[in-house]
Amino acid sequence: MSNSLLDNINLPKDLRQLSQDDLSQLAQELREFIINIVATKEGHLGASLGVVELTIALHYVFNTPEDLLIWDVGHQAYGHKILTGRKEIFDTNRQLAGISGFPKRDESDYDTFGVGHSSTSISATLGMAIASKLNGDTNKQHIAVIGDASIASGMAFEGLNHAGVTDANLLVILNDNAIGIDPSVGALKQYLTNVKKGTQKQDNIFEALNFDYSGPVDGHDLSKLISELERLKSVKGPKFLHVITTKGKGLKQAEENQVKYHAPGKFDAKTGELITKSSSNQLPPKFQDVFGETIVELAKQNEKIVGITPAMPTGSSLKYMMEAIPERAFDVGIAEQHAVTLAAGMVTQGLIPFCNIYSTFLQRAYDQVIHDVAIQNLPVIFCLDRAGLVGEDGATHHGVFDLAYLRCIPNLVIFAPRNAVELRHMMYTVQKGIDFPMAIRYPRGRGILLDWKTPFETVEIGKGKCLKEGVDIAVLSIGTTANTVTNVIENNPKFHNIGHYDMRFVKPLDGDLLHILFKKYKAIISIEDGVVTGGFGSAVLEFANANNYKTKIEILGIKDQFTEHGTVNELKAINGIDENGLRETLEELILSL
Amino acid sequence: MSNSLLDNINLPKDLRQLSQDDLSQLAQELREFIINIVATKEGHLGASLGVVELTIALHYVFNTPEDLLIWDVGHQAYGHKILTGRKEIFDTNRQLAGISGFPKRDESDYDTFGVGHSSTSISATLGMAIASKLNGDTNKQHIAVIGDASIASGMAFEGLNHAGVTDANLLVILNDNAIGIDPSVGALKQYLTNVKKGTQKQDNIFEALNFDYSGPVDGHDLSKLISELERLKSVKGPKFLHVITTKGKGLKQAEENQVKYHAPGKFDAKTGELITKSSSNQLPPKFQDVFGETIVELAKQNEKIVGITPAMPTGSSLKYMMEAIPERAFDVGIAEQHAVTLAAGMVTQGLIPFCNIYSTFLQRAYDQVIHDVAIQNLPVIFCLDRAGLVGEDGATHHGVFDLAYLRCIPNLVIFAPRNAVELRHMMYTVQKGIDFPMAIRYPRGRGILLDWKTPFETVEIGKGKCLKEGVDIAVLSIGTTANTVTNVIENNPKFHNIGHYDMRFVKPLDGDLLHILFKKYKAIISIEDGVVTGGFGSAVLEFANANNYKTKIEILGIKDQFTEHGTVNELKAINGIDENGLRETLEELILSL
Repeated sequence: MSNSLLDNINLPKDLRQLSQDDLSQLAQELREFIINIVATKEGHLGASLGVVELTIALHYVFNTPEDLLIWDVGHQAYGHKILTGRKEIFDTNRQLAGISGFPKRDESDYDTFGVGHSSTSISATLGMAIASKLNGDTNKQHIAVIGDASIASGMAFEGLNHAGVTDANLLVILNDNAIGIDPSVGALKQYLTNVKKGTQKQDNIFEALNFDYSGPVDGHDLSKLISELERLKSVKGPKFLHVITTKGKGLKQAEENQVKYHAPGKFDAKTGELITKSSSNQLPPKFQDVFGETIVELAKQNEKIVGITPAMPTGSSLKYMMEAIPERAFDVGIAEQHAVTLAAGMVTQGLIPFCNIYSTFLQRAYDQVIHDVAIQNLPVIFCLDRAGLVGEDGATHHGVFDLAYLRCIPNLVIFAPRNAVELRHMMYTVQKGIDFPMAIRYPRGRGILLDWKTPFETVEIGKGKCLKEGVDIAVLSIGTTANTVTNVIENNPKFHNIGHYDMRFVKPLDGDLLHILFKKYKAIISIEDGVVTGGFGSAVLEFANANNYKTKIEILGIKDQFTEHGTVNELKAINGIDENGLRETLEELILSL
Repeated sequence: MSNSLLDNINLPKDLRQLSQDDLSQLAQELREFIINIVATKEGHLGASLGVVELTIALHYVFNTPEDLLIWDVGHQAYGHKILTGRKEIFDTNRQLAGISGFPKRDESDYDTFGVGHSSTSISATLGMAIASKLNGDTNKQHIAVIGDASIASGMAFEGLNHAGVTDANLLVILNDNAIGIDPSVGALKQYLTNVKKGTQKQDNIFEALNFDYSGPVDGHDLSKLISELERLKSVKGPKFLHVITTKGKGLKQAEENQVKYHAPGKFDAKTGELITKSSSNQLPPKFQDVFGETIVELAKQNEKIVGITPAMPTGSSLKYMMEAIPERAFDVGIAEQHAVTLAAGMVTQGLIPFCNIYSTFLQRAYDQVIHDVAIQNLPVIFCLDRAGLVGEDGATHHGVFDLAYLRCIPNLVIFAPRNAVELRHMMYTVQKGIDFPMAIRYPRGRGILLDWKTPFETVEIGKGKCLKEGVDIAVLSIGTTANTVTNVIENNPKFHNIGHYDMRFVKPLDGDLLHILFKKYKAIISIEDGVVTGGFGSAVLEFANANNYKTKIEILGIKDQFTEHGTVNELKAINGIDENGLRETLEELILSL
C-alpha cells in the first residue's frame, strides 16, 4: 500500500474511512495532484486550490451522492472530481471525449447539476430540497457552494429571497475569497469585507433574508470546517455558512497573482513559474486586446465613450481602459442584466457605451436587450466577446446562439468582423454616432493580422464585401469564418471558380449584394460559427425566399445539438465548418452542379 | 377660471405654482380623474391610485423633466402622464395610436425611460446618474420609483449592488404596498414588513448596501413626502426612501380587493362596482383557466406534478392549484431566472414541474432555459402564457419572439395548441413522462371551444394534423392562427382548393407531413403570431431548403418591427395576419399560380 492517502481514495466512501487527523495530509496531496495535472494539461487552477479543504470536509461530513452537493461555477470543482471517481481520468480534463472542466450530470452521480455560468446553485439546490421534502426524503442534505462574486448576481439573490420563506433543508456555503475571475466588486462585497473585519453593524443581510447564518469560518481549517458542517447537519431550514478562503491557496504565485492563476495555462508545477509561449510579438493580437486597446484610443478622443464589463475586465481586456480612464470604465460584477440597462440609461444622456459581454453571457440579459435597448432604439454598442465555439470550456460556454437570438430583434444591427482591422474600423465608426443599437461579435483568441493598427476608416453599415470573384459557386461567410474560406479556396486551382463574399452584417443583410449573387451564381453556401437553426444561413434563406430565388443554398454552421468541449478546431470539424469540412462540401457541390 | 385645480395644470411647472396647501385637493381631483377614465376606458387602476400623492410630490419638489424620474413597471404612472401634458389625451390610453399604458420615450420628455417589464429602473437611473456626473451636470437629480414586488427581482438587486459603490446622485424610492399584481412574496418582503412594524433588528439591508436609508414614510401624507424629498435633494450619493402606500387608495373596492382592481376592466366610477360582461358561462374559457383547472385535475392524480409561477398566480390561473394543493404550487415572485432553475433542480429529483411564465417574461430567463434546462435535457414543462400579440399592453409585452429565440435551442420541443382541448391533451401527455424539455405556448384570453373538458388523450410528439385537404395551396398554421385560417377558408367556395394543416409543433417539425405537402402542393403559406425573422416560417424554409423543395413559400407573421398597442385584432391587421390579411394573401396567391 502506498504512503499516499490519495492513491487509495477513489470515492468519498474511501475518504470517510480516514481519521480526521489524516485529512490535512490528504489536502496536501490533493493540492499537489491538482497542481501537477493543471501545470501540464492547463485548466482552471486558483478556484479549486482555494476549496481543497472545503471539498474534503464536505465529502467527509455529508453522505454524497445521496446528499446533494452543487458547486456554483464549476471551475472550483476539480478536487470534487478527483475525489469522486475521476482521479485516473482527470488528465483528460477539458479534452475532446475527456471529462468536462465543469460538473456535468452525464459524467457522475456526484455531479448533481451542471454548472458553468455562475449563480445558479441556490435555485437548483432549493428545487432539489423542495423536491426531497415532497418526496418524503426528510434526511437528505442539500448544499450549494457559491463564491462571493457569484452571490452578487441577481439570480442568486432571487434564490435566497425564495429560500428564505421556505422550510427547505438547504445549506448555502459562501466561498468568500473576494474574487471571481477578477476581484469581486459591488456593495455586497464591501459588506462581506466588513463582516470579515467584524465592522458590520448588528444585523446581517442573510439573517434579514431569514437564513440561519454562521461564520465566518477559516476555510483552510479542516477541523473547524468539519465541526461546523456537522453542527449544521442537524439545523433545519435554510442555513448560510460564510467561509473565508484564499484563491490559489498552496501555490505561492497563485495566491499572489490570483487573476493570472485563475486559468494560467502551462506552468512549472514545482516553482509555479508560468511557461510562456513563443513570443507573442510574432503573433497577431487577440481580438480582446484589439478591443481593449482600441477603446482606449477612441475614448481618449471622444469623451462620451464609456466601457462596461460584467466581471470580465481581464478576459475582455477592458482592463486597459479601467487603467487608463478609470472614471469611464465600469466593472459591474456578474450582473449582465444590470450592465445592459445601465448602458441604456447612459445612452439617454448622451454617452456612448461599449457594453462588452461574452456571447454566452448575453443570454442572461436577453430581455434587457429587447426591452430596454431595442424597443427604445437606443444606440448601445454591444461587443460580444467569445462568440462562436470557445473550445475547452464546452457546451455551457460556446457563443453559438447569438446570431439566432439577436437576429429576431427589430432595430438591432449585427456585425461580425473577419479580422482585427474590421473590428477596429467598426468601433471607430459606431462611436461617431449611430441611431440604432449594434452588436459586434468576435471570437476568443487571436486574429490573423500582425499589422492591425491602421488608420481608422468608416465602415458602411449593411454592406458586405467581395473577397474573391467566382463563377459557379459563391461562399458567403460571416466573421472569422471568412478566413477558413480563404484558406480553403485560395491557391487551390480546383476552387478557382468559387467566389467568396464576407457579408459582415447578419442584420441588415446586404440586399444589393445578395441580388447580384443570386442572379450570378448557381449555388450559394453560407458558413457561420453559430447555430444553423435561425442563424445567418436562415437569414440568407429568408432573403432568397422573399425574392423568389430558387438557387441552391447550402447552410454550414453549428448543428442543432449541444457541442461539447475540445479544441476549437476539433469542434469545428465535428460541425463540418473546419477547412476539411468546407473543402468536402465544396467538392461535393462542384460535382453536383 | 374653473374651481378645479387639475383643469389648470398641463405641466409640472403649473403644479409648482400651487401652494402646498392646495395639493391635497389636487390629489383628490387627480384620483377622480384617473377613476373616471379608467372606469370606462379600462386599464391599470390600483397602482396609479396608490401613488397619487407621491406623483404630485415628486413633480412638485423636483424639476422634471430636467431632473430625471423613472417609474418602475410603468402601470403606476397614470398620474404622472396626466400631470405631464397628456391629460387631454389620457382617454386614448392603450388604444391604437393613442398614448401608451406605460411611460414611453417617444411620447414625452417626461418619460425618461420606457418601462413595462419590472425592476429595470435602478439600473437605468444609475446609468443616467453616472452620465450626468460625467457630463458635469452636478445638480441633476435622478429618481427611480420601484415597487416592493419589483425590488425583489434579481435585476434590481444588481442595480443596488452597483449603485452602492458609486457616488452617483441617485434616489431609489421604494413604493411599498406589499403587492405587485398579486401579493408580494419572498424573504425581502417579510423583511420589509418587519421594517414597517419596527421589528427588524438594528441594521438594514439597504444601509448594508451603502445607501442612505430613510423612512418608512406615509406615502399618502403629502407634507411629509414633500419635506422628506426636499431634504433628500441635498443629500449626495445613493439614497433610499422607503414609502408606504396603499394600492387602490381612494376607491374602497380597489383598496379591499387589490388583485381584482389591478386592472379591473370597466367599472362604475361612483360606486366602484365592476361592470360584468355578458355571462361568461356562454363563452369558451380562457386558455389561462384551462391551464389552471387542468393542472389541478392532473396534479390530483399525479403527485409528482408541481406548479411554478413568477408572480403571476392570478394572471396564469395557477392560483387554482395554489388553493387546491398549496404545498405543490409555488409563487416565487418576480424571479423568472430563479423559477426556471428551481424547476430544473426539481426535475433532477423526479418532480414534474409545470413552469408557467408569460412569453415576454421568459426573455428574462433565456440563459436558464439554455444552460440549466436544455443542455442537461431536463424535462421541465414550460407553459408560455400570453404568447403572440397581447393587445393593449403593447410593444413591451407582446410574446412574439419566443418561437425564434426558443427554436435555436437543441433538445427543446415546442408546441402550440390551437384550442383548449389540445392544450389539455398536451398537459396530460407530458406529465406522463417525457425525456426532453417542452415549451407549450398559448395566447392571452379565450379559446373557441365551449366543450373542452373531454377525456384526456395522448398527443403524439412532433405530429401535425390535417384540418382540411386541398389541391393547390396548403396553409400551415401554428397555434391559434389555425382558427383564423379556418374562419377564412371554411365555407368559402373561392378557397375550396386550399388545404389547411395545423403543424402543432414548431420543433421538431413534422417532416413526414411536410414531405407529403411539399410534393403535393404548388404553394405553401405559413402563418404564425410570432416574428417572421427566424420563427416558424423560417423553420419551414429550412426544411424545404434542406430537402431541395423549390415550392413557392409565403411566410405570414409579425413583421420585423416592434408592434405597438391596440386591440389584438388591430395589431394582427397591421401585421397582415388577421382574417382580411390572410384572405388577401390567398386571393393574390391564387391569381399568381
